[in-house]
Amino acid sequence: MSWNWYQIEGPTVIVDKAKAVRNIERMQAKAKSAEVRLRPHFKTHQSDEIGSWFRATGAKHIAVSSVPMAQQFAAAGWNDILIAIPLNPRQLSSYNQLAIEVRLGLTVEHTDALEAISELTTQVDLYIEIDAGYGRTGILWTEHVRIDDLLHEARQLPQVRQLGLLLHAGNSYNRDGDDEIAQIHEQSLGRLSDLVSRLTIPREELLISVGDTPTCSRMDSFPGADEIRPGNYVFYDLMQQQIGACDWQDIALAVACPVIARYPERGEVVVHGGAVHFSKDRVTINGTDYFGQVMQLTPEGWGEPVAGALLHGLSQEHGKVKVPDEMLSRLELGDLLVIVPAHSCLVMDASKGQCQIIE
Amino acid sequence: MSWNWYQIEGPTVIVDKAKAVRNIERMQAKAKSAEVRLRPHFKTHQSDEIGSWFRATGAKHIAVSSVPMAQQFAAAGWNDILIAIPLNPRQLSSYNQLAIEVRLGLTVEHTDALEAISELTTQVDLYIEIDAGYGRTGILWTEHVRIDDLLHEARQLPQVRQLGLLLHAGNSYNRDGDDEIAQIHEQSLGRLSDLVSRLTIPREELLISVGDTPTCSRMDSFPGADEIRPGNYVFYDLMQQQIGACDWQDIALAVACPVIARYPERGEVVVHGGAVHFSKDRVTINGTDYFGQVMQLTPEGWGEPVAGALLHGLSQEHGKVKVPDEMLSRLELGDLLVIVPAHSCLVMDASKGQCQIIE
Repeated sequence: MSWNWYQIEGPTVIVDKAKAVRNIERMQAKAKSAEVRLRPHFKTHQSDEIGSWFRATGAKHIAVSSVPMAQQFAAAGWNDILIAIPLNPRQLSSYNQLAIEVRLGLTVEHTDALEAISELTTQVDLYIEIDAGYGRTGILWTEHVRIDDLLHEARQLPQVRQLGLLLHAGNSYNRDGDDEIAQIHEQSLGRLSDLVSRLTIPREELLISVGDTPTCSRMDSFPGADEIRPGNYVFYDLMQQQIGACDWQDIALAVACPVIARYPERGEVVVHGGAVHFSKDRVTINGTDYFGQVMQLTPEGWGEPVAGALLHGLSQEHGKVKVPDEMLSRLELGDLLVIVPAHSCLVMDASKGQCQIIE
Repeated sequence: MSWNWYQIEGPTVIVDKAKAVRNIERMQAKAKSAEVRLRPHFKTHQSDEIGSWFRATGAKHIAVSSVPMAQQFAAAGWNDILIAIPLNPRQLSSYNQLAIEVRLGLTVEHTDALEAISELTTQVDLYIEIDAGYGRTGILWTEHVRIDDLLHEARQLPQVRQLGLLLHAGNSYNRDGDDEIAQIHEQSLGRLSDLVSRLTIPREELLISVGDTPTCSRMDSFPGADEIRPGNYVFYDLMQQQIGACDWQDIALAVACPVIARYPERGEVVVHGGAVHFSKDRVTINGTDYFGQVMQLTPEGWGEPVAGALLHGLSQEHGKVKVPDEMLSRLELGDLLVIVPAHSCLVMDASKGQCQIIE
């Protein structure tokens, strides 16, 4: 394995295939041993080629978070696609077209969303989103009457093939370490289990889909769930490393950025690599916000993190990187810094799935 | 004038042409009365069509912040392009090709960057970047010996057609109101003037280019400068409004986002419109971070801001919007919220220059 870093001109997303495939295989093995179906979330990579690595491990069901992504992966041959964001009535004709091409899953939580479903001419799988404490989307787990009523109403619709409950415990992202991740995991699944026990719809009629990268990475069982739906684990990133969801050697994506200016008096360099490449998602370490961690450059890609070398400032195309004096004194204009970003999903979206793959 | 908001399906960038053209014309008129050349920074819009609105007002010189942008606008017929980011030696062959096609400006601050310039086979305009207090890129204004030496060295190179000094007072973005903007303006131009008075290179040999949107918007004269280089003013945004660089009615860009979920108990709705559409650039108002301001929807586009309706949370595709109870009670799934973003440049980059234009 090697990569052609000599040929890189501007900021370039680099994906280490061996690490990504190991991450994919590990999650597939975990799902198998936990006896749940794995539905990887493809919003993380948005790449047909990387999607094919999942297919090689046996993946058949995927999640996405927009209609354009669903269309992209339907065209790439995926035929069971869940759009894991609440239904948008403006996109009914796109849902209809997709539902003809693939087995389509949609997500709802309001009765007027069911009215939109009733206008579809093709069957879909229909998930009611549950909020078990994250506070973004979904009906609160405590509102079991409302959830039960909605399920009964949905069940009447000829457009509904399979009913399900969908949960994303995004609050695991604010946690630190296995104990805190386990706490969110138990709390979310406990609340879901409590809800299910109060429903008048039989459990076996419901497909229960849960999952976020921290809990799916660190926990080994998913009591009460039929399916897990993590996405970020294919690459991981600085945020996941800080949460404790992965180790440095699991991170499979970085951005190679050329050094374009040096400031020994400030202990930093500026790279070409800015908000349009990294996004402005950030990780707070000891009270300071960082956008990325510089890694050791190796002939095979990258190795361990360089202590004290952190991306701490971003404007549109510029990145300010603190670097240790010893490293700074060696850096020449055009040298590459390989930087693990705070959030790899947003980096891949910014590059529209374009990346250089280290085979 | 009207816009087809019925046809919008997903999150869509909307540009109000009348407002943008007024902003373009106003800056052109100011440059004329201040007797400086206007070199608009096209990183803000990255759109050939919007570029043509500048051409209609007489613009001939532009700035960009990357090689791909320079290539895009060279192909669109612009023939004086300054790449206003420090030279990257990895892109020499692209610079060479561009310099054949257009009058190209490059930016340097290190002697090894001059070595790269000496390898070009075509002439370029060469700007030494000066840091007058912003602390991102450029040589500190106090290092006049180093700057003078670099200018003398550059002057020897047959590749250098025109020598210049380039300054971006990005520290104006941390200011609030005309007095503070004026303070940064006077400080930056005063430091530049002090530097120029200490150089042994004659002033008339140097083209002095300055500019950022807050000072160019609010100040009327640019003593010591030959050229101003603002970019964001074509659209403005919530950040510029908060700085005091523009009024609400000057803002020419917004993102139309469909409502996909309602939470009366939280006083908010969730829209399809997330970090991949808004970026995560933010504005802090009374200690809270916001990513955008909801505007009144009108048949012509949008009107005044809706008091208390602010985009306060973003994940990849979801946006959480606080809305007043009265508005919330009226909102249906699929209704559009028209949201002025914190930073319009990053919104246009995220959409790769794609937008719906209200004529």
